[in-house]
Order: sequence, then structure tokens, then C-alpha cells
Amino acid sequence: MNEEIKWIRSITPSGYRQPELKVGIGDDAAIFYQKEDKDTVIAVDTMVEGVHFKRETMPLHAIGHKALAANISDLAAMGAIPQYYLVSVAFPKKTWNKEELHEIYRGMANLAKEFSMDLIGGDTVSIEKQLVLTVTVIGKIKQNRHLLRSNARPGDVVFVTGLVGLASLGLEMLLEDGLAAANDAANAQYIKAHQEPQPQLRAGLLFAESGFRMALNDISDGLASEAKEIAEASQVDIELDWARIPTTDYIQSHSTQKQESWLLYGGEDYQLLGTVSEEDWKSLQLMFRKATLPLYEIGTVRAGNGRVAMERDGSSTVITATGYDHL
Amino acid sequence: MNEEIKWIRSITPSGYRQPELKVGIGDDAAIFYQKEDKDTVIAVDTMVEGVHFKRETMPLHAIGHKALAANISDLAAMGAIPQYYLVSVAFPKKTWNKEELHEIYRGMANLAKEFSMDLIGGDTVSIEKQLVLTVTVIGKIKQNRHLLRSNARPGDVVFVTGLVGLASLGLEMLLEDGLAAANDAANAQYIKAHQEPQPQLRAGLLFAESGFRMALNDISDGLASEAKEIAEASQVDIELDWARIPTTDYIQSHSTQKQESWLLYGGEDYQLLGTVSEEDWKSLQLMFRKATLPLYEIGTVRAGNGRVAMERDGSSTVITATGYDHL
Repeated sequence: MNEEIKWIRSITPSGYRQPELKVGIGDDAAIFYQKEDKDTVIAVDTMVEGVHFKRETMPLHAIGHKALAANISDLAAMGAIPQYYLVSVAFPKKTWNKEELHEIYRGMANLAKEFSMDLIGGDTVSIEKQLVLTVTVIGKIKQNRHLLRSNARPGDVVFVTGLVGLASLGLEMLLEDGLAAANDAANAQYIKAHQEPQPQLRAGLLFAESGFRMALNDISDGLASEAKEIAEASQVDIELDWARIPTTDYIQSHSTQKQESWLLYGGEDYQLLGTVSEEDWKSLQLMFRKATLPLYEIGTVRAGNGRVAMERDGSSTVITATGYDHL
Repeated sequence: MNEEIKWIRSITPSGYRQPELKVGIGDDAAIFYQKEDKDTVIAVDTMVEGVHFKRETMPLHAIGHKALAANISDLAAMGAIPQYYLVSVAFPKKTWNKEELHEIYRGMANLAKEFSMDLIGGDTVSIEKQLVLTVTVIGKIKQNRHLLRSNARPGDVVFVTGLVGLASLGLEMLLEDGLAAANDAANAQYIKAHQEPQPQLRAGLLFAESGFRMALNDISDGLASEAKEIAEASQVDIELDWARIPTTDYIQSHSTQKQESWLLYGGEDYQLLGTVSEEDWKSLQLMFRKATLPLYEIGTVRAGNGRVAMERDGSSTVITATGYDHL
């Protein structure tokens, strides 16, 4: 048996969780169906060693966790339920061994279990230097319940589902002290936010179930960049209220410059950023309170053409810089 | 506007071809539905610069063509109709420019047009050295028409949909003489087989429509390796008849060793390899003749446990070596 077949067998689950799956891992392609009132949702994300993660700052299982979490977060931002994932890995034999790769897959498998997802396919190829992990995630969504970036309208409330800036500070701690940074209990929530982000799936489902017109995006590239995407897609302006952006006291104890870098440009928080009409905002708050999920108002949508501004101490500044740029 | 958004806009199609698509490129995820008698089929493949392609042997548009073709071929091997694709690219700024990347995307777009497929998502990230291209393809298939590797039964006829070994010889020509190898008209069919393989979609659909029990696989890793996959998945032995494996006279004019390397282990021919009962074989031949598509009998399935043997000049040898091994 060749190594690739052995590898595929070693990662093939002993059973599948999704009843709509017909053919899983091991053939040319996987096959599933959706019940008739469901649409299929699909997203793909790639993580590159040295760019998105380093061994020095990420335990192996966390690399897997994060790669899958980023994709689940994309589905959460559509209000969808994740069901399946496929993993394509470019694997540098010289610097990685198969047991390490298994540990990455276990990180994905653990998170997948939490969301009842099935691994249904993938590819394994060789590369010289950097490990590359591409995850495709598929889910389902009730027909005609789309939470699109282009849905924002002037007068909308801008909200976020949780604290921001934590992942970015966590990365900074790890880059400074390596994995030893985790030894200090005070650092734990920041490091966990970076290494094992939690996709806001319950929040995404509540948004979808509300039936309200909403714009929604997940914060992978930073609040400023994601707000900009909504503003441009909806052809409106977004004004963020600096004082209301939720974060920790510890982050707020730092210089404004530091705070801005973590809160606005840091990214990888995987919270959901959205807008909803002022009228529906009240009902949404009530729904989230009942579900004991946080939800913070952080700004307003105004008529405009795609700008993001920030109001601080009575004056408003246009934010021009955006998140990490790969091209 | 940041470079990533500019890039996404530049590759976003002006319109979509598939009526079942609801949300295409530009949001966190794409959304589509299937009509109620259809299942969804999905496959993913990764190509790495220096491993799967080199600039010295592949025009840029052909890199795109081939990446998408390999995936369409996986769907053809399930008897499915391709509809959508997502492209994730890890892009080394130092050695590639954006216009070159566009040319790769154009190669995909041209092939996609041929099959009425839509680009519906992807990701673009940076990498240091080798360009990595991961394509996810989604298609549809009529419910309960699965052509699985595990369907082979003792007594089945083993067949292939076209000539094999050409892509492998083509690569050898290109490695020897670079792109100049294409200047010799006699080389053209081999070079084209390597650079711009044609997925056997029509054949795959005919197989699916036949309703016959069939095992099917596409030849990406070489005839020996793909036959082995069917044999193992079906727990049978497969005996190939060397004299019947279809190829060109030119390939047959070479030494047995050379021929074996191209025909059995070469791969990337993207023909379909399958098995069907002797009874249905006659009808299948008729269907292919009517459709003016080639179909060649090249062996027999026997009771067994996953071996592939080759019969040549009256004696049978077990084939142990397999295709390219990435792990």
C-alpha cells in the first residue's frame, strides 16, 4: 500500500455524523444532499506556515483548530450551520513529520466534533518549505435567509458579538516570549483567543433565525477592514464609536496607538460584526439576552459611499488603513 | 481600497452561468441550491510549483487549465456535472507578479466556460517560495447514481476511455527541451496531453446515465495506482492485459521499460478507468459507439484481495509499484 493511501486511511473517520452524507472520504469526490428547504453554503481558507502560524507560537493541534475555526466563522457570518470539511495540505517532508501532521488533523477533528462536522475529502501533496493548509467548509442554511455584507442601510445600528483585540495581543505575547508566554495565567485569555478562536456560530444562527435584514461579516482581518467591506458592499458609511468598542481593561490600560493596532487592525478575533435597523436592534438585544450571548452596539451606519470613520472624544476621523494585505 | 479587494474584484465574473447559484464571489461564503432529485458532489486538489508544474514546462494559462481540469476529472469519475469552483492561491510576491496570476486564472476561466462553470469563491494568501494552487470543485449528480471505486466484482471487464501514457511522455519532452519542445509538430499531442488535459466528462455522464453497476476512477496518478485503488476498495484482483492498453505507435516503438514507465506509472492522463459486468459491457460499447466516444477493454476483474497483475506474453506478474507518492 502506498503512503498516500495509508495516510488517507489513517484520517478516515470510522463513522459520519451528518445523515445527509452519501459518500465520504476515499473516492474521487464526496457526495451529499440537502433537504429541500435548505441551501448549501461553501467557503475556503488557506493558512501558510510562517505567514498565518509559526510552530514557535502555535501548538500543533491549535494550528488545525484555527484553520477549521476560520472557515466555520465564515459560515457563521452567513448564519449557516457547518456540516463538512475537506483538507488539502502541502507537506514539507524535510521539516515536518507525519505524527505532527496527525496532531494538526486531530486539532481539526476535535473542533469538528463540537459542531458535528464530518471530514469528507482532501488532498496531500509535497512542498519544499512551508506547510500550507487549505480547508474547505460546507454547510447548510434555510432558504432565503442570507446575511450579506451588502445589507447595511443608513440609520442601522453597528454591533459586534464579543470583545475584540484579544487575539492580536495574544499573538504579540507569543512572538515576544514564545509558547512560554502561556505560563502566565494572566495571558491565558489572549493566547487562547489567538491559538484557539471560537467561531460565533450560535450568534450567527440567532441572526439568521431573527429574519431581520442584516449585514454581517466575521472579523478575520481586523475591525477596520471588515467594517470597510460592509461599507463598500452596501455603499454606505460606517461610523464606529471608539469608546464603545468592547475589549478588556488590560488592553485599555495601554497607549492609544497600541489599542488601535489591536482593536482596529489586529484581526483574527472571529467575532461577528454586523448592522441592523434601529427598530430590530431592540428585539435582537432581547434575543441575545435570552440566549445569554453578548452583543455590543459600537456605531452607526450613515448615507455615504464606503468610508469607515471613527468618533473619539467628540471628533470623527476617517480610517484609511486596513487589515493585512497579502497581495 | 486594499490590494486583496482589488484582486477579488478583478477576478469576479460579470455574471453567473448556473441558475442555482444564489450568492457568488464577494461575501464570507457562496450559496447555492440543488433541485430536489440532485445530490451535490465535491472534490479538492492542490498543485504546487516545482512539484506539479514548472514555469519551464507550462505556459501560465495551462497551469490554470490543468488545476481545474484535474478537479473536473474527479467529478467525471463520479459521473457528475461540474458547476462551481473556488480557488485558493498561496502567492510568492518575490517571484511572481499579479499579471502572471491573472493569466493562470484566465486558463481556469476558459476551461470553466467550456463546462458552464462559475468561480464562486477562494482565498489569496502570501507565501515565500512556491506558488500553491488549491481548487475546490462542486457539481451535481442525479440521486442514487454513484460510480464508486468499490463497485468492481469478479468477472467484470476492465476498461479505459482513451489512450494512456501521453501526458507522461509529454512531460519528459518538456523536461528535456523546455517549452521549445512544442515547436516540433510530432510532439504536439503529447505536450498538449500534459499541459491541457481534457477531463472525460461526456464519458462520465454516459456511465452515470447507463445505470449499470460500475467501478470508476480517473487516471491522475498512473494506471497501476488507480487500478490498485479500485482493487483495494472493491476487495478484488485486477488483471490488466498489457497488449490491450491503448497508446500511440510512437510510444510502442520504445523499450518495454520506457513504455511501462509512461503507461503504468506516468499518470496525469485524466482518462477514466472502470469495470462493468460482462453482460453490460456490450451495451456500454454500443452507447459509446453511438456517442462516437472511444472505449477500450484492457483487463478482467478476478476474485482476490486488492492486487493488480499484468498479463504479458502469456505470463502474469503482480504489479507492486504505484504512482507518485507525496508522503
